[in-house]
Amino acid sequence: MKLFRYGPPGEERPGIVDKYGKLRDLSLHISEITAETLADDQLAALQKIDPEQLPELPADIRYAVPVRDIGKFVAIGLNYRDHAEEAGLAIPSEPVVFFKATTSISGANDPIIKPPHSTQLDWELELGVVIGKRTRYVSAEEALDHVCGYCVVNDVSDRGFQFQSSQWDKGKSCDSFGPIGPWLVTRDEIPDPQNLDMWLDVNGERRQVGNSATMIFSVAEIVSYCSRYMTLAPGDVICTGTPPGVSMGMKPRPKWLEIGDEVTLSIAGLGRQHHVVTAYRGLPG
Amino acid sequence: MKLFRYGPPGEERPGIVDKYGKLRDLSLHISEITAETLADDQLAALQKIDPEQLPELPADIRYAVPVRDIGKFVAIGLNYRDHAEEAGLAIPSEPVVFFKATTSISGANDPIIKPPHSTQLDWELELGVVIGKRTRYVSAEEALDHVCGYCVVNDVSDRGFQFQSSQWDKGKSCDSFGPIGPWLVTRDEIPDPQNLDMWLDVNGERRQVGNSATMIFSVAEIVSYCSRYMTLAPGDVICTGTPPGVSMGMKPRPKWLEIGDEVTLSIAGLGRQHHVVTAYRGLPG
Repeated sequence: MKLFRYGPPGEERPGIVDKYGKLRDLSLHISEITAETLADDQLAALQKIDPEQLPELPADIRYAVPVRDIGKFVAIGLNYRDHAEEAGLAIPSEPVVFFKATTSISGANDPIIKPPHSTQLDWELELGVVIGKRTRYVSAEEALDHVCGYCVVNDVSDRGFQFQSSQWDKGKSCDSFGPIGPWLVTRDEIPDPQNLDMWLDVNGERRQVGNSATMIFSVAEIVSYCSRYMTLAPGDVICTGTPPGVSMGMKPRPKWLEIGDEVTLSIAGLGRQHHVVTAYRGLPG
Repeated sequence: MKLFRYGPPGEERPGIVDKYGKLRDLSLHISEITAETLADDQLAALQKIDPEQLPELPADIRYAVPVRDIGKFVAIGLNYRDHAEEAGLAIPSEPVVFFKATTSISGANDPIIKPPHSTQLDWELELGVVIGKRTRYVSAEEALDHVCGYCVVNDVSDRGFQFQSSQWDKGKSCDSFGPIGPWLVTRDEIPDPQNLDMWLDVNGERRQVGNSATMIFSVAEIVSYCSRYMTLAPGDVICTGTPPGVSMGMKPRPKWLEIGDEVTLSIAGLGRQHHVVTAYRGLPG
């Protein structure tokens, strides 16, 4: 299944993509997509619905984040060998774990808001993993049973903020720096998360091309590893690192994102995001 | 006011301390203490209640975290000059911001659960700041108006986990590594957050003594700084760094926390925490 939430902030409704790619309203069956919706039995109940019987939605809906009230937004640094090299950083011997603020989360096509003092705004195309059940000390062998699905994440970063101190979180956590979606694609549709093509364009120029096959630590290893340090809860999202091609690594010099730039990114089977970089003018809400 | 939540996990009720220090049940007036409760008008309504008219509670209640559903648990590293020195790290020129997982949050007297693979378990006595209203780009001059109150935090850390990679979050985020409370003390009771005595004992031996007067960055500066990088939301908690005296800095060698150790800590006017270090046996919930 491809599940989503749509509508203006604060008025989101649930939706599902039918087999022809049409968007359908799911609110006859569930009122919201929350952490509870991600349990195996809840998803199994949704699997029995025929989406073609549901009201069709226009193609130009605003996608909201596909799960409401994400508790933790975990990120893995330097998880593609080539990206570690372009960043000039050593290949890690264990996953490098950090957090993005949950207030950074935004919809798949929402604008990227450039903070007034941002000067090194960058993109990071990432495979997002959505946790489906309470997870502690899970083995890598069993870890994917704790994943309910996958999504596209843009781990937007300001490198000036990120490297101002030793701790990266601040440069990863500004409002709008965490677009998630458009869809939560349940794991039955992604039999092998380690073979997903992905790409990212800026203003129509290809910047990132990759495949999750070249991750240093697999999705299963990452989920297992994180679960040794913290309880992973339903709805938690882990973004699993970015392939080469971020601005920071560009030669002879980076091309930081500027106001008006357009960023488009996609992972096979998981849909596409499109963002316009906009100035901060205060944020709604 | 001194507000708290009490009772077993999942069945918490609100409470308030009366002027004689007796604990009173507040559930006749509000069903829960959430982010919404922290708004100035909501707190003003609670101020009008006479706690002595409310049912008295026994002194041995279990304190839960004083605000339900904390969205972000922000931490500031190396914010006391002497602690930076004992850690062998440079005095920062700007606040060092990182996150603790919200799943690390526990009650004021809950056990500290030692993860099975933890070998360098340490304590950090910290002043916690609770945000009362939505905060973005606030000046230091206005920042304290956005703070609804203060609390004691133990920023429990495993130094092995913390320094295994460059990013500290993992060593700060294990379940039970974030005791908060016992009380949320509203800001009217703490006219100067930069003059609070604090101490921490391990097994009855004094390990940390400090005063928030020696912070490098004041509470107001920290709130202002963080608000330039992320929206601070009602209920977010910022712990503001620890004074000298953590295990990591002990000479000739650290005395890491071991199972059975008892940690007691207090900040003037904010109450006291007491923890017993216990083995991981699976966690409830």
